[in-house]
Amino acid sequence: MVLATSARNAGALLASAGLGDVFDHVIDGQTALDRDVAGKPAPALPLEAVRRLEIPPARAMVIEESVTGVEACRRGGFGLVVGIDRDGRRDRLEAAGADVVVEDVSQLDIGLVITHPWLLVYEGFDPAHEGHREALTTVGNGYLATRGAAPEHRAGAVHYPGSYLAGVYNSLHSVVLDQESDDEHMVNIPDWLPLDLRIGDGGWWSAGGLSLRSERRTLDLKRAVLSREALLEDDAGRQLRLLQRRLVSMARPNLAALETVITPVGWSGGISIRSGCDTDVTNSNVPEDASLSSRHLGSVTAAASVDGPGIACLTVEARTVTSGIGIALALRTAVSGADGPAGSGIPEQLGGLHTHRFELSVNAGEPLTVLKTVAVASSRDHAIASPLTAARAALARAPGGFAALLAEHEAAWEILLEPFIIELDASSQAQLILNLHVFHLLQTLTTHTAELDAGVPARGLHGEGYRGHIFWDELFVLPVLNSRLPSLARELVDYRWRRLGAARDAARAAGLKGALFPWQSGSDGTEQTPKLLFNRRSGHWMPDYSRLQRHVGLAVAYNAWQYFEATQDRGWLTEHGAEIIVDVARLFASMAEFDPADDRFHLRGVMGPDEYHTGNPGDPGGGLNDNAYTNVMAAWVFDQAVWIMHSVRGFDMQELRARLLVTAAEIEAWEHLSRRMFVPFHGDGIISQFDGYAALRELDWEHYRRSYGLIERLDLILEAEGDSTNHYRLAKQADVLMLLYVLGEDQLIRFLARMGYAVTSAQMAATVDFYLARTAHGSTLSRVAHASVLAQRDPERAWAVFREALDADLDDTQGGTTSSGIHLGAMAGTIDVVQRSFAGLRITRDALDFAPRLPVELSRLDFQVRYRDQLLAVQLERDRLTVSAAPGDAAPVLVRVGTQRVLLKAGQEHEFLRKDR
Amino acid sequence: MVLATSARNAGALLASAGLGDVFDHVIDGQTALDRDVAGKPAPALPLEAVRRLEIPPARAMVIEESVTGVEACRRGGFGLVVGIDRDGRRDRLEAAGADVVVEDVSQLDIGLVITHPWLLVYEGFDPAHEGHREALTTVGNGYLATRGAAPEHRAGAVHYPGSYLAGVYNSLHSVVLDQESDDEHMVNIPDWLPLDLRIGDGGWWSAGGLSLRSERRTLDLKRAVLSREALLEDDAGRQLRLLQRRLVSMARPNLAALETVITPVGWSGGISIRSGCDTDVTNSNVPEDASLSSRHLGSVTAAASVDGPGIACLTVEARTVTSGIGIALALRTAVSGADGPAGSGIPEQLGGLHTHRFELSVNAGEPLTVLKTVAVASSRDHAIASPLTAARAALARAPGGFAALLAEHEAAWEILLEPFIIELDASSQAQLILNLHVFHLLQTLTTHTAELDAGVPARGLHGEGYRGHIFWDELFVLPVLNSRLPSLARELVDYRWRRLGAARDAARAAGLKGALFPWQSGSDGTEQTPKLLFNRRSGHWMPDYSRLQRHVGLAVAYNAWQYFEATQDRGWLTEHGAEIIVDVARLFASMAEFDPADDRFHLRGVMGPDEYHTGNPGDPGGGLNDNAYTNVMAAWVFDQAVWIMHSVRGFDMQELRARLLVTAAEIEAWEHLSRRMFVPFHGDGIISQFDGYAALRELDWEHYRRSYGLIERLDLILEAEGDSTNHYRLAKQADVLMLLYVLGEDQLIRFLARMGYAVTSAQMAATVDFYLARTAHGSTLSRVAHASVLAQRDPERAWAVFREALDADLDDTQGGTTSSGIHLGAMAGTIDVVQRSFAGLRITRDALDFAPRLPVELSRLDFQVRYRDQLLAVQLERDRLTVSAAPGDAAPVLVRVGTQRVLLKAGQEHEFLRKDR
Repeated sequence: MVLATSARNAGALLASAGLGDVFDHVIDGQTALDRDVAGKPAPALPLEAVRRLEIPPARAMVIEESVTGVEACRRGGFGLVVGIDRDGRRDRLEAAGADVVVEDVSQLDIGLVITHPWLLVYEGFDPAHEGHREALTTVGNGYLATRGAAPEHRAGAVHYPGSYLAGVYNSLHSVVLDQESDDEHMVNIPDWLPLDLRIGDGGWWSAGGLSLRSERRTLDLKRAVLSREALLEDDAGRQLRLLQRRLVSMARPNLAALETVITPVGWSGGISIRSGCDTDVTNSNVPEDASLSSRHLGSVTAAASVDGPGIACLTVEARTVTSGIGIALALRTAVSGADGPAGSGIPEQLGGLHTHRFELSVNAGEPLTVLKTVAVASSRDHAIASPLTAARAALARAPGGFAALLAEHEAAWEILLEPFIIELDASSQAQLILNLHVFHLLQTLTTHTAELDAGVPARGLHGEGYRGHIFWDELFVLPVLNSRLPSLARELVDYRWRRLGAARDAARAAGLKGALFPWQSGSDGTEQTPKLLFNRRSGHWMPDYSRLQRHVGLAVAYNAWQYFEATQDRGWLTEHGAEIIVDVARLFASMAEFDPADDRFHLRGVMGPDEYHTGNPGDPGGGLNDNAYTNVMAAWVFDQAVWIMHSVRGFDMQELRARLLVTAAEIEAWEHLSRRMFVPFHGDGIISQFDGYAALRELDWEHYRRSYGLIERLDLILEAEGDSTNHYRLAKQADVLMLLYVLGEDQLIRFLARMGYAVTSAQMAATVDFYLARTAHGSTLSRVAHASVLAQRDPERAWAVFREALDADLDDTQGGTTSSGIHLGAMAGTIDVVQRSFAGLRITRDALDFAPRLPVELSRLDFQVRYRDQLLAVQLERDRLTVSAAPGDAAPVLVRVGTQRVLLKAGQEHEFLRKDR
Repeated sequence: MVLATSARNAGALLASAGLGDVFDHVIDGQTALDRDVAGKPAPALPLEAVRRLEIPPARAMVIEESVTGVEACRRGGFGLVVGIDRDGRRDRLEAAGADVVVEDVSQLDIGLVITHPWLLVYEGFDPAHEGHREALTTVGNGYLATRGAAPEHRAGAVHYPGSYLAGVYNSLHSVVLDQESDDEHMVNIPDWLPLDLRIGDGGWWSAGGLSLRSERRTLDLKRAVLSREALLEDDAGRQLRLLQRRLVSMARPNLAALETVITPVGWSGGISIRSGCDTDVTNSNVPEDASLSSRHLGSVTAAASVDGPGIACLTVEARTVTSGIGIALALRTAVSGADGPAGSGIPEQLGGLHTHRFELSVNAGEPLTVLKTVAVASSRDHAIASPLTAARAALARAPGGFAALLAEHEAAWEILLEPFIIELDASSQAQLILNLHVFHLLQTLTTHTAELDAGVPARGLHGEGYRGHIFWDELFVLPVLNSRLPSLARELVDYRWRRLGAARDAARAAGLKGALFPWQSGSDGTEQTPKLLFNRRSGHWMPDYSRLQRHVGLAVAYNAWQYFEATQDRGWLTEHGAEIIVDVARLFASMAEFDPADDRFHLRGVMGPDEYHTGNPGDPGGGLNDNAYTNVMAAWVFDQAVWIMHSVRGFDMQELRARLLVTAAEIEAWEHLSRRMFVPFHGDGIISQFDGYAALRELDWEHYRRSYGLIERLDLILEAEGDSTNHYRLAKQADVLMLLYVLGEDQLIRFLARMGYAVTSAQMAATVDFYLARTAHGSTLSRVAHASVLAQRDPERAWAVFREALDADLDDTQGGTTSSGIHLGAMAGTIDVVQRSFAGLRITRDALDFAPRLPVELSRLDFQVRYRDQLLAVQLERDRLTVSAAPGDAAPVLVRVGTQRVLLKAGQEHEFLRKDR
């Protein structure tokens, strides 16, 4: 690791702090500027200096104090860009791309930042970014997740201590703009965190009686523990050292714990502790939803008890008001000092906040430990007599003491995490973010989720954005799970299978056949897309037409097929998977209109992934004709349905055909459709996003960039201007290019040829360039797709886009949306890009294929893949790809790299050399 | 089919009725008596006559009028024994073993009885047997089941219209004998059947205003439809012909329907129809539970609406009072006559009975149709927004008209049923009962059950016996499912897996390790065995010690292993199955006490399957030492656990070992235990049921048979006498012999040898004889095990015992218990005996083994087996066994008959000839 800086004194200060063993080189820019590269503009200096050392910028950290300097360094591909905010420009520095912004170099904990790709550290408290940090420090176990909120604060403008249970929704009635609506939300459950302090008779911490002198929050990704070190002080200058650790147990899905160790610094006396549960919670995490009803819990009851010295218990029961889901919490607070259990909890109640107050005396330097353990259960759990008995049993079953809870939690987490670890030789920062993405994927979706009939929530269990709904994100998430935890992937597809009834109803209601999956799905699989979208820029409510995205069902069918390919789970295919594929094929077959004029089938009135086009100009919400992505993927699903019906043979397939009444004529129709769907083109063989796209106007991108800076949400900008995105050649996100992401260039070209469209590689390149230039990246998924597409033809640019994709949530690049939840599809997508695009991994009908395209910034990549019953360790270097199968008795698998094919047995290793490719 | 009778005129009457084409021979006993076998006692005559024809008695039907005649014919093995009750001795004739009792030969619908092995027919109404018939005509779909009760009657002394949802339990507090208890019951949900009639202003049918002139109820097993033809008459002699059909939809788990067609016979005028739902239901099906609390539903609300001409709707919501499960019903009544929809429903309420009354005028000969369609949902369902929205959606989704409901129901039922059909060339009666057993197995457990986290309820969903609890019956049920519907078998084992937490708690609470599964399991897997058992004979409450049956966990582990053997589902083994096996092994390892004196391990203080021994004499409830069944099966589980740990290799097994912290030392200890468990013997190598059994007194069986007639419940008899079953060499049911049932003789002898016990085949024969002579058959499972054991050494006797096992529920041989539910283990057990014992099918580690032992009464047996991914049609004849694999692309499987082994590919057939064996 190299440090390069042009910031005043930064290099010298750090060097003098004895960091010689952290950095291989320290380039102090001010000095360098004078001596070596005088005349160059300062912002370019560190890059220049690093280049001279012939070290990849990704392996260097830079410290900059100007916005332009940060921007330049970000563009230069530095591993870590630190901004120094000497004049309150934190926001601008962050917007410019700084990975970390500090007010002084001394605040930088270089050791943590640089050397630990498994630690996400936040120094100090920053009210403007607290929501963002809460979301990114959420800990969960796929059943329950709790935002990384400070336990002393209740929900308000700055803090939002939300906790969520996977799959727990409730619908409330609201009136907005005189429109009545019933809106289903993932429910914020009672807050189990509350823990407040005061010294003597002073004010409570929550009320300002104590203030933070320093604070560091560390999310340890390798242990899945969030810790917080703080120094508190009251008005009289008395200090308390505070250490908090929390976990949501990966070993026991119903369990979470918060340990607080308090040590008086240099004084002895009385302190009070208040520990309890806030039942007075609403869904208030999303500003745009402020006008909707928000109180999802009814019949809330709480019962407090004192269960011995230093131990107080609380049980809370509530029921969601319309879905009727019972939720119970059993909470135990145990206080102990040097001499064992301490104090006696006095029950108190303040509105919905039920607490026990402990009055204690403490001695200087002697730590006092408060352990809160909570068990949460809901009526959706299996194997319970009631939520309350289940919560009580889970609490009773929990081992005593944080250390024991932590030990089993860590052991379970290690087992879950291990196969997901991807090691890059990129900067620590890139590695950290990739690890963070793996982490949050596995806080949201785990083996525990597999028991819950829950889907893939677009915003994790990390906040209330998108109301906790399920979109098409599984298209980006399941490839990662299929190849590591296929039993979970199966259950996530089964979330869709269980909602085939609602999807069939929706198709019937639309006069169609088969199954019409909703764009936004919640509890029962009915359409949950809101009808209106609030534009904070204009103050208008805009119609939300995104439900016209019929392509979500294509993603579901694709995922069902991919799970089968990865596992050869034939029982599931015939019992569940093929039902999905058949019913999606039926939907699109019934939507397809034949035009004798071109002897082609057309899909009319739909939207593609690009939500900025809802209809032709002048017809917003009218949908578009022949969205290329939808048409080609529909053809792909038709082809897949035919393949299953013809190639999977046996009594079980006969039974399936009998069950679904699949006829030979129907299969023939799919076969025909798979070859005769229409695909629009314009120019010299450029695939048109939809029929009519070519006739749209070009946008003056430069004008909008100049006028607005960030122009990702062009929909809101243009609406506020009285204009519409429907008029322009632009896209919110990858749309045509999604075809390249999903199918890969080779397969796409072959598939188009089969459909009767000869597209050359050069034409495909022109298509890529055309859309790359016209995409606003208004969705975090967009850069994922683009990075993947670029990996196939422009590896260097791919890395830059990949880095931007990595930064999406960490830097909250979508303009503050991360505070209401991570973007799970984008997080998983970055993991997927590494394996799908950099390693070129594809699961095909007979083999595991690799087509490595390592970006120049990477020289090595290590990851594991489960394929059928084998666990394969993959090590990719510039000149070789090594695949090692774990020992065992599983059947051999075929691995293919280009023309090389190897049948790999358990315990075997094979090295594919580049020269052979 | 032959008819033989010594009853006066019976033969002549039947023959004169033109039944020449039904019977190959008609032997009129009275005639025969005079001419052929004069001097022989009459009861033996038909048997004698049939023997002369050299036709197996199983292929003959006999009509007898004396109790001794019926008894003799039953012993003689006739296919169908008809009793003629000329003097009110129906009960005695039935007790003596009559298959059908009629008052007059003309009541016999020979066509139905003899020629339709798929029709269960009840002629006329018999209040004494109504509960029994309700249970046996229950229709269900594995999610919902409804007893075959008459819709016009509410629950009372005679009628009990119960409906149950799989896995829906509730616990209530009761005080019995000053003992407080919380008892969990499967909940009787609101009754959706009520449908009442009256003519003009006359009294309602339910109140006696109409009376039944004739009635026939037919359960069509092939269509899963219960129909009822009746002729009603009012005091004025006006008649109504009534045809009712009902189904619980196999196509849509939440749906059921009851169609009623009413036709006035020779008159026109007004009629009233009342249709609705009875919400005022309790759990009152079991007389012994009468002193327990019984109201499980709270917050019941109902809402009526009229939805157009002739259509009335009702929604009902309720919540179980302690488990908090929401239950909703949406019910639609549609009335139509010749001119379309008829009448308008007027909402009425009588207590908890919510109905719509339709006032209609009818014309002679013109049918009026009333279709009730109900959708039921509960908060335990997946993919719902709430029970009420789910019930409404399911009702809205239902096709209109009974014909359409029936068509999709029949199609789904055919697909489910088909692989379970077993064809015997035994009497139609035997075939009918076997079909009935298949039927009720598949009303209780279906693909829909697989979604419910429900176990195998001992009494089906057919009544409230055993409170709907889960015992060890899956030991008898899963072999049938494993080999036909393995995905369901897996979910039923997962019911246990999900309750490992409770089982681990129970072990911990008992000072043991591993998992202690409860003897009776309900919602959450805690022990639900009642502490008291009411003895109606003595009027005493007796302590119930059956929870000492630790062996239930051995059955769970055995089933987990068998599922893996049948499917090779390795993912499930490492994620779920092995967890069960390891934790059961751990339990028994921690229970085992080492005695250096004999260098053996002992299990103390347990009960075996025989519930009549709860402790040594003088120590009831103290448990027994070294129950042979428990000790040997524990050794088997130890061996299996070792095998898994050593032989299943791979990363996933490593992960499992890490997750469960399995150490090499632990595996070594299991290996040692598997060889050194103690097995008690007495006499010349007879396995003792437990240590100390040999010292017990012999029972004077003849005395008790003389004194009490039926002596199956010796426990109640002896308790009433102030004595105890603990004092005697007797058994409620197979205990030692269960080892032979589960493991088979060869494997058992080999396994004992491995344990250091040399047991010869002759000694095993002596063991069998010893226990056969001392078993009271107080459990329906007993005859199943005995038939299986006898098949291996005494095929002729096996068939007789098998026939007795078949008759258990149809004839209600357990003294009236069938009215509170079928005996699912015994029903499935008879199916299992056919494949396990008659065909000798066993699933071993590498092959599907057959060791046919066809009883002399059978010359042919046809069934299907799913093994791994193949579907095999098995045809067994005296001299050959033919196995045909269905076409397809599944991998070949190894089939073994004796020393012959064939690797059978999909689409292939192989004939194993007897001479080669």
